[in-house]
Amino acid sequence: MKLSKKDLLGIRDLTVDEINLILETAESFIEVSTRDIKKVPTLRGKTVINLFLEASTRTRTSFEIAGKRLSADTINISSTTSSIVKGETLIDTAKNLEAMNPDAIVIRHSAAGAPQILARIMKQPIINAGDGAHEHPTQALLDMMTIKAKKGKISGLKIAIVGDIAHSRVARSNIYGLTRMGAHVTVAGPATMMPRYIDRMGVRVCCRLEEAIRDADIIMMLRIQTERQQENLFPSLREYANYFCLNGENIKLAKDDVLVMHPGPINRGVEIAPEIADGPYSVILDQVTNGVAVRMALLYLLTGGK
Amino acid sequence: MKLSKKDLLGIRDLTVDEINLILETAESFIEVSTRDIKKVPTLRGKTVINLFLEASTRTRTSFEIAGKRLSADTINISSTTSSIVKGETLIDTAKNLEAMNPDAIVIRHSAAGAPQILARIMKQPIINAGDGAHEHPTQALLDMMTIKAKKGKISGLKIAIVGDIAHSRVARSNIYGLTRMGAHVTVAGPATMMPRYIDRMGVRVCCRLEEAIRDADIIMMLRIQTERQQENLFPSLREYANYFCLNGENIKLAKDDVLVMHPGPINRGVEIAPEIADGPYSVILDQVTNGVAVRMALLYLLTGGK
Amino acid sequence: MKLSKKDLLGIRDLTVDEINLILETAESFIEVSTRDIKKVPTLRGKTVINLFLEASTRTRTSFEIAGKRLSADTINISSTTSSIVKGETLIDTAKNLEAMNPDAIVIRHSAAGAPQILARIMKQPIINAGDGAHEHPTQALLDMMTIKAKKGKISGLKIAIVGDIAHSRVARSNIYGLTRMGAHVTVAGPATMMPRYIDRMGVRVCCRLEEAIRDADIIMMLRIQTERQQENLFPSLREYANYFCLNGENIKLAKDDVLVMHPGPINRGVEIAPEIADGPYSVILDQVTNGVAVRMALLYLLTGGK
Repeated sequence: MKLSKKDLLGIRDLTVDEINLILETAESFIEVSTRDIKKVPTLRGKTVINLFLEASTRTRTSFEIAGKRLSADTINISSTTSSIVKGETLIDTAKNLEAMNPDAIVIRHSAAGAPQILARIMKQPIINAGDGAHEHPTQALLDMMTIKAKKGKISGLKIAIVGDIAHSRVARSNIYGLTRMGAHVTVAGPATMMPRYIDRMGVRVCCRLEEAIRDADIIMMLRIQTERQQENLFPSLREYANYFCLNGENIKLAKDDVLVMHPGPINRGVEIAPEIADGPYSVILDQVTNGVAVRMALLYLLTGGK
Repeated sequence: MKLSKKDLLGIRDLTVDEINLILETAESFIEVSTRDIKKVPTLRGKTVINLFLEASTRTRTSFEIAGKRLSADTINISSTTSSIVKGETLIDTAKNLEAMNPDAIVIRHSAAGAPQILARIMKQPIINAGDGAHEHPTQALLDMMTIKAKKGKISGLKIAIVGDIAHSRVARSNIYGLTRMGAHVTVAGPATMMPRYIDRMGVRVCCRLEEAIRDADIIMMLRIQTERQQENLFPSLREYANYFCLNGENIKLAKDDVLVMHPGPINRGVEIAPEIADGPYSVILDQVTNGVAVRMALLYLLTGGK
Repeated sequence: MKLSKKDLLGIRDLTVDEINLILETAESFIEVSTRDIKKVPTLRGKTVINLFLEASTRTRTSFEIAGKRLSADTINISSTTSSIVKGETLIDTAKNLEAMNPDAIVIRHSAAGAPQILARIMKQPIINAGDGAHEHPTQALLDMMTIKAKKGKISGLKIAIVGDIAHSRVARSNIYGLTRMGAHVTVAGPATMMPRYIDRMGVRVCCRLEEAIRDADIIMMLRIQTERQQENLFPSLREYANYFCLNGENIKLAKDDVLVMHPGPINRGVEIAPEIADGPYSVILDQVTNGVAVRMALLYLLTGGK
């Protein structure tokens, strides 16, 4: 089976059937990473370029492992070593890479829309690994995979997303995906971190954490980008934590079998208390495991591997 | 077949027969990168070290893809992570790498002559991926391959090389190669960018772009290193572009079937107008594609792969 | 055969039998790196993560080559590109990596004890590739392998270790290993570079190079970290060299068949004179060659490869 799309640019573009196809394919790849020999010959002789023009460890590592477990040749290009510093345009970089006949390009870029530019001019499949504050579709897919694995479904679940909604590509991709899959999504965060017109995305908006997580099946905590404090989006980390840190007390408002998720890296004691991050409700590390499988599925589906 | 040389240090050292052997081998490798499974077992179990002590994306990526498509194990070492920062000499770095039994070393270095030092002390084949303002032989080989593929020959062609001739290793390697292959080479650029005694290299020297490209079969535009402007080699980028930018107007002076080449990354609107870079005469992306094949050929010929 | 340990954290933890098992396994792997096809399928489908949170070329390259020659998939993570910069704790980084199902983690870290932390929380084997001023066990193992290969034994040999004993993880690991294997170890260096209570480690302590190397079978010179001079551990490099540089004159005090070792990178003319580093007594490059074999042995023994 194959996705009818050439690229994975965002969740917004995906139908329910496409999301289900990706999740089911990912589920079938989970087993590969538990084998003694964690490798299938599916993408032997394919070249996957990881073009990471914004710093990242976990996503790049996850894609690299995914590619290698499918037997693809993986090439890493990072911003610090790239000729971007020599002033080449992204379009010229893309055309140059295309001329080397890769089979897929995974791109992370600090500018929203960069993967779209590549997709338009390159014949190869483009996978968005995070573009500015726009989308981070593989994160949302691994989140949905984790929810489905733990809850058996997504439809009908009450899901709270808490934190810096306005600047979070993780939040945007999850809002698109979860609402499309029939979940009831509530978002919460400081007013300075809430985008205008967010209600038009089909979500309920709260100002307070407690309100958002009441009776929730799933709580997704977003990373506070501590480097952003200087922009005065909130007075201090302590102040933020006072109001929006998920802890052993306020979590009692959620359902008894609530799942706690976080895209990582986590700020312990800022948006999430250590006892929650490491506690029984947390599926944070399942998310990481599922991330490799989701990326294997996308590389497979988009390059038409056999 | 095998090159009789241990190393590829520069085009200056190559005979016509050796250049032809490399180009023909490269032509036979072009097809590998168009397959569904882009991989041949030729260099399985060989270790290729890419020692890039000067920043580079395209050349390192091209060599890495070339190695992987031949099934070699590729190891990247870049200046930022190397113990060069700990004050080790290049000779000691080389001896250490040699002791790990690699099968080939690809080196880029900001100092002219660095690959020669390695070649002298290491038993393994050394491939020069660009040394200071000295030579960039794989670039010249891929340029010659592109010319031969498009024009069927190199001998007798009128070829103009335009830009910062004095500081360009691309220009030097191409002048050696193209004159040896029987082309008529003309160079042009500002007087501050023209090396003394350049005429002794067997080329015609012009001060004006228009004069150099008149009736040319091939125009090679060199990259202006915009970071070098502070050295006052030219008053401003705009001034440079006024006199030396190849554009839709002045290109009419060349032959109707002229080919436009550029080693990249290009500065749009400085040395080359966008309509030329992206236009019908441009073979810039063919150069990139051929680069992978040329590097595969050299890794194959120098390591005696089967 | 397999090590009964999950991890290789330090030489201090190893028994004589364990050291011998590692050295004998390493000896059997030496041959692989001399083959035409330098690759065995032993670790095919295994994922080895090189987590280098402190700069290193030679050790990372050595581990990467070792992994690839065993057919493992190798993933490099370095500090400059890691999310450590985003403030994630080492423990969270470790848990995240664990969730991606690697088969071994090689870690270098500037903080002593970092590998121990990983070993405690991760189910995968951890290999210490150098932690602060604590241990560098693979260096000591390759040193012991080199001694055994050249002298046929370790027991009973007179071994001098000279330099900055206090800050050297290489010295510590070698003192543990060599004394355990029955060698007579003497250490020498400036008083500012000699740890208190060093004599409790079972070594003889000298203040002068000449005294330490008299009748020595083996001299190990340590690297002076020239960047440390500002800490005023010694007045100047020249002063240090006057007293502690191994040269053609003072080496005559040692046995006629003395071996000179150095973990590299060397400071020529500081701790070792060029004529010694490049001379007949030097086995510095044998150490490097053996390093690949020792790392292959450890990856093999700890991941239970077949």
